[in-house]
Amino acid sequence: MSLPNSENASTLENAMQLMIQTFHKYSGNEGDKYTLSKVELKEMLTKELGSYLGNAQDKEAVEKIMGDLDSNNDGEVDFTEFIILVGALTVACNDFFLEYNDKQEKKK
Amino acid sequence: MSLPNSENASTLENAMQLMIQTFHKYSGNEGDKYTLSKVELKEMLTKELGSYLGNAQDKEAVEKIMGDLDSNNDGEVDFTEFIILVGALTVACNDFFLEYNDKQEKKK
Repeated sequence: MSLPNSENASTLENAMQLMIQTFHKYSGNEGDKYTLSKVELKEMLTKELGSYLGNAQDKEAVEKIMGDLDSNNDGEVDFTEFIILVGALTVACNDFFLEYNDKQEKKK
Repeated sequence: MSLPNSENASTLENAMQLMIQTFHKYSGNEGDKYTLSKVELKEMLTKELGSYLGNAQDKEAVEKIMGDLDSNNDGEVDFTEFIILVGALTVACNDFFLEYNDKQEKKK
């Protein structure tokens, strides 16, 4: 997967490119190279989101996330389903940081 | 907006942090510091997505994007609405890159 020159990319464009690169890093390993199989999803969750989803090692947790994400029930996670996961996690992180910052400000 | 130490962050975690940082870079300029006003949205679109949305300079285009994003009609774009825009653009970019790569491979 080669992406166009990103030297002049903005911060947000960089973030978008990093999400695209991450997906294809794992999706290309086996089967359909444009979707994540259960094995690829588990590898992605463990290596990329280990600190958010501590229990992705757990087989049941991977099954649960796959079940929630795989909205068309084909046993694979496609790019749109992946972006929905990342978006939901980012919103959750943002809420967490805002609460954290509010608490820090109250301490001052 | 300070974020926890990101030295050991994965590629995907970096992408998530960049999206959070980008939003707050613009949302803090005026009014509610956790939402984008029309002026802040325009600045964000122009500076961060200029190469994707060439015509964001255009006042009508900004009104249109604001209208589409602002699902609760309060005249402000909140973080969740921002993530929906970025997610949709990222899916569009990914489709574009896949088509581009397919064409490059056919040339070989």
